[in-house]
Amino acid sequence: MAEIEYRFFPAQKLVEFSQRTFMHFGVPEADAALAAEVLALSDLRGIDSHGVARLHTYFDMLTLGRINPKPTVKIVRELPATAVVDGDNGLGLVVGPKANIICMDKADAVGSAVVSVSNTNHFGMGGYYPIKALERGLIGWSMTNTTKLVAPLWGAERMLGTNPIAIAFPCNEEPPVVIDLATSATAYGKIEIAKRKGADIPYGWAIDKDGNMATKPEQMVEGGALLPLGSTREMGGHKGYGLAAMVDILCCVLSGANWGPFAPPFALRQEIPARSVGKGIGHAFGAMRIDGFIDPLEFRNQMDDWVRTFRATKPAPGTTGVVIPGDPERQSEIERTKTGIPLISAVIDDLRDISKRTGIPFE
Amino acid sequence: MAEIEYRFFPAQKLVEFSQRTFMHFGVPEADAALAAEVLALSDLRGIDSHGVARLHTYFDMLTLGRINPKPTVKIVRELPATAVVDGDNGLGLVVGPKANIICMDKADAVGSAVVSVSNTNHFGMGGYYPIKALERGLIGWSMTNTTKLVAPLWGAERMLGTNPIAIAFPCNEEPPVVIDLATSATAYGKIEIAKRKGADIPYGWAIDKDGNMATKPEQMVEGGALLPLGSTREMGGHKGYGLAAMVDILCCVLSGANWGPFAPPFALRQEIPARSVGKGIGHAFGAMRIDGFIDPLEFRNQMDDWVRTFRATKPAPGTTGVVIPGDPERQSEIERTKTGIPLISAVIDDLRDISKRTGIPFE
Repeated sequence: MAEIEYRFFPAQKLVEFSQRTFMHFGVPEADAALAAEVLALSDLRGIDSHGVARLHTYFDMLTLGRINPKPTVKIVRELPATAVVDGDNGLGLVVGPKANIICMDKADAVGSAVVSVSNTNHFGMGGYYPIKALERGLIGWSMTNTTKLVAPLWGAERMLGTNPIAIAFPCNEEPPVVIDLATSATAYGKIEIAKRKGADIPYGWAIDKDGNMATKPEQMVEGGALLPLGSTREMGGHKGYGLAAMVDILCCVLSGANWGPFAPPFALRQEIPARSVGKGIGHAFGAMRIDGFIDPLEFRNQMDDWVRTFRATKPAPGTTGVVIPGDPERQSEIERTKTGIPLISAVIDDLRDISKRTGIPFE
Repeated sequence: MAEIEYRFFPAQKLVEFSQRTFMHFGVPEADAALAAEVLALSDLRGIDSHGVARLHTYFDMLTLGRINPKPTVKIVRELPATAVVDGDNGLGLVVGPKANIICMDKADAVGSAVVSVSNTNHFGMGGYYPIKALERGLIGWSMTNTTKLVAPLWGAERMLGTNPIAIAFPCNEEPPVVIDLATSATAYGKIEIAKRKGADIPYGWAIDKDGNMATKPEQMVEGGALLPLGSTREMGGHKGYGLAAMVDILCCVLSGANWGPFAPPFALRQEIPARSVGKGIGHAFGAMRIDGFIDPLEFRNQMDDWVRTFRATKPAPGTTGVVIPGDPERQSEIERTKTGIPLISAVIDDLRDISKRTGIPFE
């Protein structure tokens, strides 16, 4: 197989193209800018799967009228430190940031808050939300459910999404610690890469359609499922399943969204669930004022110490040593701010297709 | 090796013995009852490692004056939805329940709250705390750091505890969903069992003192470390490490407790950390009013549907099918309420030793 080739595009160019694409469907200018910002930050931070590579999917959903371009995002129930937000079936890239702001405003007022969101769609990179909280001096976290792809431990079918959890903590002199992880053993993208390469997949990543361990990527793709983080009972697969269940319940049952296997499909190729148990997919956000717990400077200095202590861990043989969560993404952001965003030809073709169909110039 | 033999003791008898043991050191009657209740619930629910099997360790720490039997548990900083609680170096079995109540009271007042706790000690079974929240109609969660035992991914030394996360959700007709998991690939107890049996341990559970994968339990015990949930980079070990880091920061950096490798030892055989960066170990608690989000009956009915849907998952071959988190522990509680608590001879010997040294009758 040939090496994958990339071409580099300045982030700002992609932001403008994304924004104009959203505006093409009537998304208001400010909302379109917000959505484009979420995608661009993902590309800058090296989370290619959640950046403009997904723009065509949003484009498809907007073309078919499956996403409301002009949602009225509103609070349907609240207390000082809680809310459920109805996203009015808007772009998750718009609903998510707005609900996150509601959560941060509440935390500013009373110290901490949790906001659960229904009737929304995919919100992009989970890490975007706690990064926004950092800008306000808050500790923030985010969760979302996603279309079913993961089997619960000892199950033989897709019942849960990859249901990520993200949280970030500020330091003083050191860069922030940004934790952002899916609760599955691996990402679907890694199955796709193995498929393109004709390679086997490791024991523990996925099962086939009958629930047996998959060794070929096709076995997972064709009706199989990813396994939860931990993979098998012996290695802690019940824990990944428990975490995915927690995310599912906090995002969906608590907000009135579609939980578990009933999450609506994100991409057109995905099947329509057997029934609907709520509205759209769900997110959950949390925010905390550090000064509600401890002197913020003391916290940040301790975090510097924490980062330096963990970075100084004796390295395991054959590795580069312990990585601080968020370090690889920050490194990518520094590099890509200079070089631009590397896009593979399949993504460039997608963007050209959008350009052709909307008249928005791409190159 | 001979089969392990058990003798059964009524839970109430163990509660009384534990309570009297704590009182022997001057722990006030109500506090001693609380601590004994936490241990007993763990034994009833089959979490043997966190029940009376640990009483001798608490006994040792109290004997040496390392734990304050009469702590003044107080709020040192707070906002309506936050607090840091100083446990005054009391039993975690007393400080934990009291801080959890502070958190639940705050959630009752404003909808949700987060409480971080410093200057405390091991708090028993993580699941105890969200179970108490269920009794008040709340969604509750708990976290704690513990003495170092786990290597961060690509590290070759113990830097983190097994740092558990627990959360529980009520149903209507179905029993509650109780999620309670350590963020390590396995429990230290499983290494000890393998050692007693002379058995190998699975690839991915632990590393030896040089950071190479351990295959013999002794390699982990003698200066090695457990691996985080996910075990290797390929299988998601960075995720388990990220979760353990999150727990460490929320429990310790946020409260002013000893984080990471500096958590003080729980048992006498454990080494004293190189330095102190705070007070005691740390916990974190969260609580949420369901009616701050959604009609509570609607939530509970949806949870019934959730539980029944997941229980009906197509089972994987060679398994008993999908288990709802909390089911095994509830089953154990039903059985052991009838049969009593099975104790192995080593634990019985420990309790007899306490009896001999305190004069509190055991049998």
